[in-house]
Amino acid sequence: MAKIKNNSPVLFFYNNSKKWLTKISKKESFHTHIGIIKHSDAIGKEYGSRLMTNKDKYVYLLQPTMYDYVMKIQHGTQIVYPKDIGYIIARAGIGDGQKILEIGTGSGSLTSFVASVVKPRGHVYTFDVDENFMKIAEKNIKKAGVSKYVTQHNLDLKTAKKMPLDEMDMAIIDLGDPWVVIPQVRQMLKGSGTMFAICPTMNQLEKLTMALVENEFTDIESTEHIIRNIEAREGKTRHSFQGIGHTTYLCFARKAFFGREARRSAEAAKVSDSSKKTAPKIVKKTITKPAKKTSGKTPKRTSKKSA
Amino acid sequence: MAKIKNNSPVLFFYNNSKKWLTKISKKESFHTHIGIIKHSDAIGKEYGSRLMTNKDKYVYLLQPTMYDYVMKIQHGTQIVYPKDIGYIIARAGIGDGQKILEIGTGSGSLTSFVASVVKPRGHVYTFDVDENFMKIAEKNIKKAGVSKYVTQHNLDLKTAKKMPLDEMDMAIIDLGDPWVVIPQVRQMLKGSGTMFAICPTMNQLEKLTMALVENEFTDIESTEHIIRNIEAREGKTRHSFQGIGHTTYLCFARKAFFGREARRSAEAAKVSDSSKKTAPKIVKKTITKPAKKTSGKTPKRTSKKSA
Amino acid sequence: MAKIKNNSPVLFFYNNSKKWLTKISKKESFHTHIGIIKHSDAIGKEYGSRLMTNKDKYVYLLQPTMYDYVMKIQHGTQIVYPKDIGYIIARAGIGDGQKILEIGTGSGSLTSFVASVVKPRGHVYTFDVDENFMKIAEKNIKKAGVSKYVTQHNLDLKTAKKMPLDEMDMAIIDLGDPWVVIPQVRQMLKGSGTMFAICPTMNQLEKLTMALVENEFTDIESTEHIIRNIEAREGKTRHSFQGIGHTTYLCFARKAFFGREARRSAEAAKVSDSSKKTAPKIVKKTITKPAKKTSGKTPKRTSKKSA
Amino acid sequence: MAKIKNNSPVLFFYNNSKKWLTKISKKESFHTHIGIIKHSDAIGKEYGSRLMTNKDKYVYLLQPTMYDYVMKIQHGTQIVYPKDIGYIIARAGIGDGQKILEIGTGSGSLTSFVASVVKPRGHVYTFDVDENFMKIAEKNIKKAGVSKYVTQHNLDLKTAKKMPLDEMDMAIIDLGDPWVVIPQVRQMLKGSGTMFAICPTMNQLEKLTMALVENEFTDIESTEHIIRNIEAREGKTRHSFQGIGHTTYLCFARKAFFGREARRSAEAAKVSDSSKKTAPKIVKKTITKPAKKTSGKTPKRTSKKSA
Repeated sequence: MAKIKNNSPVLFFYNNSKKWLTKISKKESFHTHIGIIKHSDAIGKEYGSRLMTNKDKYVYLLQPTMYDYVMKIQHGTQIVYPKDIGYIIARAGIGDGQKILEIGTGSGSLTSFVASVVKPRGHVYTFDVDENFMKIAEKNIKKAGVSKYVTQHNLDLKTAKKMPLDEMDMAIIDLGDPWVVIPQVRQMLKGSGTMFAICPTMNQLEKLTMALVENEFTDIESTEHIIRNIEAREGKTRHSFQGIGHTTYLCFARKAFFGREARRSAEAAKVSDSSKKTAPKIVKKTITKPAKKTSGKTPKRTSKKSA
Repeated sequence: MAKIKNNSPVLFFYNNSKKWLTKISKKESFHTHIGIIKHSDAIGKEYGSRLMTNKDKYVYLLQPTMYDYVMKIQHGTQIVYPKDIGYIIARAGIGDGQKILEIGTGSGSLTSFVASVVKPRGHVYTFDVDENFMKIAEKNIKKAGVSKYVTQHNLDLKTAKKMPLDEMDMAIIDLGDPWVVIPQVRQMLKGSGTMFAICPTMNQLEKLTMALVENEFTDIESTEHIIRNIEAREGKTRHSFQGIGHTTYLCFARKAFFGREARRSAEAAKVSDSSKKTAPKIVKKTITKPAKKTSGKTPKRTSKKSA
Repeated sequence: MAKIKNNSPVLFFYNNSKKWLTKISKKESFHTHIGIIKHSDAIGKEYGSRLMTNKDKYVYLLQPTMYDYVMKIQHGTQIVYPKDIGYIIARAGIGDGQKILEIGTGSGSLTSFVASVVKPRGHVYTFDVDENFMKIAEKNIKKAGVSKYVTQHNLDLKTAKKMPLDEMDMAIIDLGDPWVVIPQVRQMLKGSGTMFAICPTMNQLEKLTMALVENEFTDIESTEHIIRNIEAREGKTRHSFQGIGHTTYLCFARKAFFGREARRSAEAAKVSDSSKKTAPKIVKKTITKPAKKTSGKTPKRTSKKSA
Repeated sequence: MAKIKNNSPVLFFYNNSKKWLTKISKKESFHTHIGIIKHSDAIGKEYGSRLMTNKDKYVYLLQPTMYDYVMKIQHGTQIVYPKDIGYIIARAGIGDGQKILEIGTGSGSLTSFVASVVKPRGHVYTFDVDENFMKIAEKNIKKAGVSKYVTQHNLDLKTAKKMPLDEMDMAIIDLGDPWVVIPQVRQMLKGSGTMFAICPTMNQLEKLTMALVENEFTDIESTEHIIRNIEAREGKTRHSFQGIGHTTYLCFARKAFFGREARRSAEAAKVSDSSKKTAPKIVKKTITKPAKKTSGKTPKRTSKKSA
């Protein structure tokens, strides 16, 4: 039975919008809308117990899960929601021992969650170029207790001459222009390795998909995930009146070999550093391709009409 | 670089509805709608490469992920979809080192996925009473390569006199009547431990929620998860015409202490084995409570009208 | 070309959350967060034109549609959303000339919309028992300009001895306990007439469906309707971050003859006023039927597991 | 009480996937999977009654609604679903007396439904260029009984020199390239008149929205509509396992005056036929505008990261 001690991590939980993640510090107490919570009151209690604030409200003392760390990290910054994180893990089959490449560390929340799943034998290599963000992420990863399983790189992979990693099991891309780094991701992934990109707009999905096809990925799948809360109550069960809006779309794919690269490599054997040069060209070609031709066409099942 | 050898696991991938998970056996070949695939053609190739069938169709040789095992296991039996598995992992914060209780092993697919996340330092203890199912599950868990991290129990927890486990980090319930085992789950969970139940009907959510409140759980949350496929194509991006229907609802909660049990335990101190006896009584009371009173009421935001 | 005059109805439209429906009154002006709007500035302008407030914000002068009246009526009271109203009209095939029965007038918004569709040859007969609501509804129906096509009744159909109408084309029920009036609705509907009930909870759907089967309705269908807003913008199109939550479920059915009634009527021929008496009994029986037996069962496609 | 006679329209209803809309013809009978249905058996029965086929299946004799005509028309061709039709009617506030412009008649199903709502004092003017489609539509509109309220035009509005209509209350566009006709639609609409376009792809929404802004429309709103079926059954209520996929997105807007046109008209006063010439230019400009600049940007709430 785990008792709360000085320095123990605790989630003070009132409800899902009022909760505070902290470490017990025996002299501290903090003021909230639901009253004052004294840390010392928690010491010696079992996790799951509750305190009463000076305003007669019950606050539960929960042992924080990785979910709590991720939600706390994300408070006030960018958000990758559990529904999206969960699908990434399940669809890519992330598990103990995998080596994960992340491009775009951000606040380090997704980094931390993935590290907690691949540890202790796996590792997350995460890249960013914004030093401020990197410091924030470092702190957050430390708080989540997974620093040992994460390496942070300050490197712009878009312009890097040499890829610092190879044989990665999986890649996660969280950039505004994910299609730009697909050739680099390809180089670092193992054969049939998986990748996920976080794409808030439909246009990103469209461009990314074209880049993935050009760069010989297969099993390409774009999805969105909607979570609906249900208020289950005796005799009046229904969905919540509170709606949850769009968060992001997700794009999944696996590295394949169409044979094109083999041919190219053969030709390029004479020239040094070939893959770096050719791959970006492919992407560029994709992007400048005019979208006009198909634009007027309606998909099969809908009305082909004209006036 | 991982080359495919005899006995290597391979996912022959044509598309998401036509794919075959198997082990390479050099003399085998199999017949499909898209032509004959000869295992020996795969040997020596890198994962991600492709073969051509005798009908000129390309089939990719992918290294199976846990997702592929789970989807294969579930083929033709009950289904827990990746979107649901993923949310369970993310919301409960499942990670390396956790001890998981599962009631209702079924085909062993969820068992396998969770084991792949908590390994090598965690473990899944799974209970079922159907011997046939247990044998199937055993096979599937072995194929998924996680037997070492799973213990299967043939025990009916509903009638068991003593709970065989304690201090579990998390519990997963996949039964038709999950509310019946909540007292038992409570006994086996650690303080503030989490639980998820897979509930295909709204009525199950309703009954389960009542049982969870009665048995001193907090942070109770019922959700459903909708995945929508997007066909991202140049100039004509849209959602898929193919809809994905209902799979299941999910119910989450964390074990708390409302103090009631403490009071009860105090009273029951004289009597041996008290918790087992009192807890089921609570549930019973919940279930027989008449639903009539509230049934005619409309929720707040809607029309209170009469005629 | 329609010019705005004194007394013309106008929707002052800034955006979808800031809009005001009123009649032009040349000496009036009103104060808003986006500045002062002077009615006299609108006079002589064409509908669709815009004014500038004293805070340099543009406000459009739109000719109100029935949608605008309905949204205005509903402001601050109960809500039947256009997505739900629309489905009711389309699924029941409401059109010019139909006679509609409405039980639960509420604020009169749905009443007004339906009247605008069935007019000039159809009519809406609407029942309520709350005099305050009835007065509010009367005002709203007048504002919407459809008083001529609506008759309001203050009558409790649940206890009424004789039904005041028959051969109705369609019935709309907006009550907390819609199942109670199904026998009455049946009496007033024509053969194969349609009905819709507005049911905010799953439990209402369940009870209502049982009552509909008992009372010989067919083509029974329960649905819910989700509207998602899309922000279509050059190069960054995506769903809106703002979510829209649950409004209500809808239940549709058509009156049929299973033959039971015929048999009953034959037997009851000796007794006067038979149908009124027998029908409610049926409903009552339905409601007190114990739900226990089926509750533990899981639907086909899901995990039949036990422990 | 309406009895079925020879020539009466009847919907033979077994369930929602097995139903047949026809006119009673006393010597006919037809063969189905559920047995033979003899028309003569229906004669003299009340609507809502049922027949038994020679395979002992009950078939209900329902009086067809406009919904049934629309579903029948659409069988095997393009589909505009009731959920989408309904929203169009409710959001645009379509009702008796309105003059509706439709561009893209298609099979005439939407035409028929809208006509049934605006009749007897309103009218639908519908345009198409495909003579085969126009003949099919003519037949369907006749069957639905609304020919009197519909005028079909064989005219290509894209190239027409003069718009044949003006002061329309509302416009419905069902074309692959709706943005092309926005200037024409604008000319034909009354001030603050409404329009809806049926857009199966996100790209269409994006282009159309740009054209609407350029052509001085306001209250622009893009939506999609999801209908979910609920199986309400005693003790086991849940959503249907059968999913319903994407049908179409909808784009709504209202004609406004930004003042631009006034300025242009003033300048163009010397030149004859000015509006026709300038408006298409605006659209053209919109379409050729390069999308590159914004493409790399992520929306506000999501991860601004770089690597």
